[in-house]
Amino acid sequence: MRFVLALGLIFAAATVHATVVTQQVMYRDGDAWLTGFLAYDDAKTSAPGVLVVPQWMGLTDYEKGRAKQLAELGYVAFCADIYGKGQVAKDSAEAGALAGKFKGDRALFRSRLNAALKALRASPSVDAKRCSAIGYCFGGTGVLELARSGADVLGVVSFHGGLDSPSPADGKNIKAKVLVLHGADDPFTPKADIAAMEKELKDAGVDYQLVFYSGAVHAFTQPMAGKDPSKGAAYNEKADKRSWTAMKDFLLEVFGR
Amino acid sequence: MRFVLALGLIFAAATVHATVVTQQVMYRDGDAWLTGFLAYDDAKTSAPGVLVVPQWMGLTDYEKGRAKQLAELGYVAFCADIYGKGQVAKDSAEAGALAGKFKGDRALFRSRLNAALKALRASPSVDAKRCSAIGYCFGGTGVLELARSGADVLGVVSFHGGLDSPSPADGKNIKAKVLVLHGADDPFTPKADIAAMEKELKDAGVDYQLVFYSGAVHAFTQPMAGKDPSKGAAYNEKADKRSWTAMKDFLLEVFGR
Repeated sequence: MRFVLALGLIFAAATVHATVVTQQVMYRDGDAWLTGFLAYDDAKTSAPGVLVVPQWMGLTDYEKGRAKQLAELGYVAFCADIYGKGQVAKDSAEAGALAGKFKGDRALFRSRLNAALKALRASPSVDAKRCSAIGYCFGGTGVLELARSGADVLGVVSFHGGLDSPSPADGKNIKAKVLVLHGADDPFTPKADIAAMEKELKDAGVDYQLVFYSGAVHAFTQPMAGKDPSKGAAYNEKADKRSWTAMKDFLLEVFGR
Repeated sequence: MRFVLALGLIFAAATVHATVVTQQVMYRDGDAWLTGFLAYDDAKTSAPGVLVVPQWMGLTDYEKGRAKQLAELGYVAFCADIYGKGQVAKDSAEAGALAGKFKGDRALFRSRLNAALKALRASPSVDAKRCSAIGYCFGGTGVLELARSGADVLGVVSFHGGLDSPSPADGKNIKAKVLVLHGADDPFTPKADIAAMEKELKDAGVDYQLVFYSGAVHAFTQPMAGKDPSKGAAYNEKADKRSWTAMKDFLLEVFGR
């Protein structure tokens, strides 16, 4: 265990998985203590960093698995804890309340997102100048909010994210390239939200790409969503694989091959 | 020069470019003589085939260049001659008239497309069971018509294609996976056409993906379109590279890695 007091970070409980090292990381946003998760290949130095913003249940093994996959690709990956103290919702009702708090207070949401980005930048072996962010569902909304906050990230990727914004004028702050990966049949994203996002990004001259996958509904990358698309949220293996490939290409582009 | 009379094909004038071999190929659709262009890596045997359907000017050096790129990727690539006798339009007015003839007679268009597919399948070293098609602008419309004809192709890719269909019920004939790569600002494709195509593909249960590139207008892969997007058609290097990468990923998926 080591303490990096100047940054308010505590790296703890390192475990080695192949050449990928994972660590729980305590960090702060003001008075709030947050519990992130870091994964990196310890053979790499000065690797690009990728922030992973969880879906509405909080930081679960799912996001940690994605971080490990990113580490296997050679990136330093850091999972954000938006809710604090590593809280994971016990059910959808609680997840809705937790996510609703941050969707209803975008300033707080942005503050938590930027705190996580700062923790990623402070982590060992990362190239702090080359960071991007990916997010799932609620975390997809998150990476767009991170970009709208003006954060210095090279790219953001939304996987089936909520695409609404209460302040579309903030599109002008976006420095990142934007990749939106979406289910063509996602019933939780009104077409009006997609159109508004496109207008926001276009008006602001943002470099964006928008991809729709047929047969895919909400949560198409998440095995825990089950396999029944009639519920509006379901895993879709093809869309999962295609979107991961699209993300890999995008990261290669924004980080430079 | 050799004659393959049983198939009505004449392979002629082979030239070697690195390991990529190119040939002009005479083939027929009924009474019409057509002049295609074949490119392949002669070190490969039983390679997947990719049909390349030209934009409205006809079969030019542009499509031949794409065929060579596909051959360098290990595919057997064949450029279709839709108009016959290798005709290339002298200007936009003539291109509009030529393309208009085929867009107005989809049965004829499909016949020419299937003749080209047959010629690809008859070419040396192709795996006739594993073929796909890509097309540009008018040729994007073409690959969708090829799919609607019920052709046995594993995948079709439209680059900034016209997306209208006079017979959307034909979507039920589509066996191919469909990838539509489009400029977010393409002024030549009405939003209603995009919505109608999505409905057609969804109603028919087709596996499709739809990708929009910001800042890209019509003809974004075509350097000969110039660089002024205000004209509605212009080259866009980023969208060109991204769409080529998306096509490569798609071909790897449909052909099996």
